[in-house]
Amino acid sequence: MFSLQPIGHARSPYKTAQEVPKGLGAKHEAEGVLEILPQFELGLTDIEGFSHLIVLWVFDRLSAEDRLELLGTPPADNRPHGVFATRSPRRPNPIGFTVVELLRRDGPSLHVRGVDMLDGTPLLDLKPYLSSIPQDKLRRGWLADAEARANK
Amino acid sequence: MFSLQPIGHARSPYKTAQEVPKGLGAKHEAEGVLEILPQFELGLTDIEGFSHLIVLWVFDRLSAEDRLELLGTPPADNRPHGVFATRSPRRPNPIGFTVVELLRRDGPSLHVRGVDMLDGTPLLDLKPYLSSIPQDKLRRGWLADAEARANK
Repeated sequence: MFSLQPIGHARSPYKTAQEVPKGLGAKHEAEGVLEILPQFELGLTDIEGFSHLIVLWVFDRLSAEDRLELLGTPPADNRPHGVFATRSPRRPNPIGFTVVELLRRDGPSLHVRGVDMLDGTPLLDLKPYLSSIPQDKLRRGWLADAEARANK
Repeated sequence: MFSLQPIGHARSPYKTAQEVPKGLGAKHEAEGVLEILPQFELGLTDIEGFSHLIVLWVFDRLSAEDRLELLGTPPADNRPHGVFATRSPRRPNPIGFTVVELLRRDGPSLHVRGVDMLDGTPLLDLKPYLSSIPQDKLRRGWLADAEARANK
């Protein structure tokens, strides 16, 4: 119904989904590069001022059978949850979301920390991270429960 | 290059873009409903446990000329910035991003606070909001500068 175009591609240390840290306590500190296509470089003007960026990208390495699982068991738990309550790739629209720390800009290349997408992943959008929900206002549902059980 | 399908639609008090609060200090506290299509309702399982949700949606009310502006002056400033350093709708891929507070779930309908999309907007995805960047780690670029100038 809607068609999208890549604005660039991610360079990441991860070549396969198995290499990406997952599950409880997984840390996303890998460095990578967001390579923006030359025709969109002007859109990066002033992005250096932001410490963190929202990256939207495509899960482009799913097999046909992987495409949708409305209820599934994520790596962080042994109980099933709805796909909209997880970050599973098996979503109706295979769009990934990652917050990265911007380390430096080199023309159309953004060097960042916190990539969790695969090398070569098509990027759809970058947006500035503007504000946070305070920790004391945040409830984290099944994930908090799973962490509590794991720490027992 | 990639095709997407709506997973539902937003009910919002805003019928036109002019009604949506914009610019410095704009508050997004409007209540609305995310109406998920019946075939995706199972994907909402356990979503009630999360206080905040990430909503991805389509800017579907843009005119053809509105479609792309790589460098533009946002409502919060009188200086131009790159589109990837703003939340402007005039992006290469017209995907909107909003964090809402989940007030309650009523079957396939999520009652939320903080809608800034128009009534009837097609929704692409919901994801749980899992963690925040601490305020002392966050730099907000031109927006912080514009706020400082406005408060002089």
